[in-house]
Amino acid sequence: MKRSESHSSIAFSKIGREIQPPVIVDLMARALANPELLSLAAGFTDNAVLPRALVGRFAMELTQEGQAEEPLQYGQNQGRQKLRELSCDVIASHPGEDRSAYDPVNLFLTNGSQQALYLAVQALCDFGDIILVEEPSYFVCLEMLKGLGIRAMGIPCDDTGAVQPEAMAALLEDLDAKGERDRIKAVYLVSYFCNPSSRSLEADEKRAIANVLLEGGWQVPIIEDAAYRELFFEEAHSAPSIISMPEFDAFPKLYLGTYTKPFATGLKVGYGYCTHPEWLQKILGIKGHQDFGSAHFNQAIIERVLAEGLYEPHLQGIRKHYAHKAQVLESELIDGGLRELGWHWETPKGGLIIWARAPKGTDLRMESAFCQQCIDQGVLYVPGDLCFSSGEPWHCARLASGALPEDRLREAARRFVAVAKGE
Amino acid sequence: MKRSESHSSIAFSKIGREIQPPVIVDLMARALANPELLSLAAGFTDNAVLPRALVGRFAMELTQEGQAEEPLQYGQNQGRQKLRELSCDVIASHPGEDRSAYDPVNLFLTNGSQQALYLAVQALCDFGDIILVEEPSYFVCLEMLKGLGIRAMGIPCDDTGAVQPEAMAALLEDLDAKGERDRIKAVYLVSYFCNPSSRSLEADEKRAIANVLLEGGWQVPIIEDAAYRELFFEEAHSAPSIISMPEFDAFPKLYLGTYTKPFATGLKVGYGYCTHPEWLQKILGIKGHQDFGSAHFNQAIIERVLAEGLYEPHLQGIRKHYAHKAQVLESELIDGGLRELGWHWETPKGGLIIWARAPKGTDLRMESAFCQQCIDQGVLYVPGDLCFSSGEPWHCARLASGALPEDRLREAARRFVAVAKGE
Repeated sequence: MKRSESHSSIAFSKIGREIQPPVIVDLMARALANPELLSLAAGFTDNAVLPRALVGRFAMELTQEGQAEEPLQYGQNQGRQKLRELSCDVIASHPGEDRSAYDPVNLFLTNGSQQALYLAVQALCDFGDIILVEEPSYFVCLEMLKGLGIRAMGIPCDDTGAVQPEAMAALLEDLDAKGERDRIKAVYLVSYFCNPSSRSLEADEKRAIANVLLEGGWQVPIIEDAAYRELFFEEAHSAPSIISMPEFDAFPKLYLGTYTKPFATGLKVGYGYCTHPEWLQKILGIKGHQDFGSAHFNQAIIERVLAEGLYEPHLQGIRKHYAHKAQVLESELIDGGLRELGWHWETPKGGLIIWARAPKGTDLRMESAFCQQCIDQGVLYVPGDLCFSSGEPWHCARLASGALPEDRLREAARRFVAVAKGE
Repeated sequence: MKRSESHSSIAFSKIGREIQPPVIVDLMARALANPELLSLAAGFTDNAVLPRALVGRFAMELTQEGQAEEPLQYGQNQGRQKLRELSCDVIASHPGEDRSAYDPVNLFLTNGSQQALYLAVQALCDFGDIILVEEPSYFVCLEMLKGLGIRAMGIPCDDTGAVQPEAMAALLEDLDAKGERDRIKAVYLVSYFCNPSSRSLEADEKRAIANVLLEGGWQVPIIEDAAYRELFFEEAHSAPSIISMPEFDAFPKLYLGTYTKPFATGLKVGYGYCTHPEWLQKILGIKGHQDFGSAHFNQAIIERVLAEGLYEPHLQGIRKHYAHKAQVLESELIDGGLRELGWHWETPKGGLIIWARAPKGTDLRMESAFCQQCIDQGVLYVPGDLCFSSGEPWHCARLASGALPEDRLREAARRFVAVAKGE
């Protein structure tokens, strides 16, 4: 018998009052609940290239008797030492990086890089504080900031996402003039195959950002989200990380990486690399309260994969796969005639997303007729307004090519184009 | 080459400024780093009874081709539906519970029950708010509350941890008179084999708590932490959960359970059961921002274990094992002559801990000569003052019997007794 519940009212905290059901949760739930609804929205990886054999093999090995340490026991709050070292190797494997610049004491393992971002922001921001973000930016981050009562403020960018340094300088001056200088707590950049724009920041652009900040005396923490950095198609993006660029020496820095997108999504292991010891200690302190350590077993599995040199071959395989998926989605959009309708996008060089822009003035928001027609036709996308701090413009769509099998990806694209054509 | 870093100062958030390195992190690090230091402090499970074979078997099965759904893909924010149902079964398997009172829509899966607690508190409390706790209480919770700027306030209890209803009523009246009524946001109870007291709340005690609150008009959320409920030695504790007791009908309720202590610690899967739909939505909203779902693979492994009826046989095995471990620790303390020195404790009926009290006035704090001598002798314990909101009294020690193998557990107890004897 269910007990009768009075549901007496609760006086929630500011965070509790502020929180809204996250759009990502809704999108994931829809995608998982209804296989007939083809989702170009959820940024899932492709089941076809998840490393089942590797995970099965090492899970089995790690549960044999006689392990030097017990992976089914608790681990350290900061994460396994060896995986922290190997994660430094991963970062340093990219162009422009120097392994000796990375020290595992600065690296911490988390429940996906999302948790690292959350912890970093908790350590920095109170209600009403400001974080500067590219436009468009990762919508889950924007939602998270809103949920914590933090104001995301867009760095002026052009239509493709390229940062406009002069406009950025003007924005900062304006904030200064309004007395908001002390509220600006960080700059958040998604520098590699950006979710959603699939654009990467060039080294020159990063330098320009550093210079604008330095000239204005804003030596605020820089958070670089590199979740998709390993997911290049043909070649790695040439720009070094903010950790390795001397222009950022004066800034506290946090670099975010993950094994969820490029490896085993369901193991949910990500990491942060923080150059500022005090900030790092705050982050680890908060993590100690949130969970005092992420799943140790999962870390141990990934550590083995890396230690045995099996990560890079896996990456080589999925790079080809995701390059093909992106090409399938793009060719279907082109063949369907979307360009002729005035839509445009840049061909992605990595990642899982095509950032499609309809003619300006088109309304693609969740509540738009376009979006409703897509749902009626059985296709989902992420309305691009969610990726802008201001909720504008409305004419962009984030189309994910990663998750759906090829035939369903083609069908989803056809449905999307059909709606765009008004069919 | 390491980049020169200026370590420019950061203006941290209130949380960032408040945070201290968690004691649990330090204890875990010490225990993991130095095998010569015998730890009666870390509340680890025993490697000897971790379910390696089960985890290995199902990890292998789940990574075969042709799974109905892909456990290496993302899962839902709230967690796997089937595991949520099976977790309701687990709760309802205890005395005084009725399965039909539990609905999986109210259950959510987390990174250990610690995350569930953290989320619940975030939804409820702002800086300066108050949560009432038993004395002694779970020190990791007390640290977490402090880190969030929340005041833990001890419910008056006797030396064994038994709640004193009249003193509790007086405390509440006093808070009311001081204008603090609206700051009291929740009551936190560790009702089953309490960490640290190993004491369970009797049904009558829970009723008395409910009545004191009702009479004063304090229908605040009740959080019941049942992390050790499955870990009884001979028989399950007779008191039903707060969910099933009609006296608590008028209260918003959250029950916390876990698979880390009774099953696979390194998989880090816990759960919360929340009867208040709005509170639950807040919790899920915050979780959506923290990680948008705990490791899906780990949930799938535990789901299989439960679905195949293998959890209960596992529990039967570890109950005997932990009963024996507790008996080993206790007999070593007795045989060493600790009682003759005026120390006392209740023989635990479940859990992983002996809550030992030295003669009043003894100083066992971290900075005490006693504690330093223990470290010198190579044995660690949790100073009991950490388990009191006020940091007093100082004469208690939390001695964990779970982790060390039997011979080392005996040796640790001998070292501890030797220090108590001044040897």
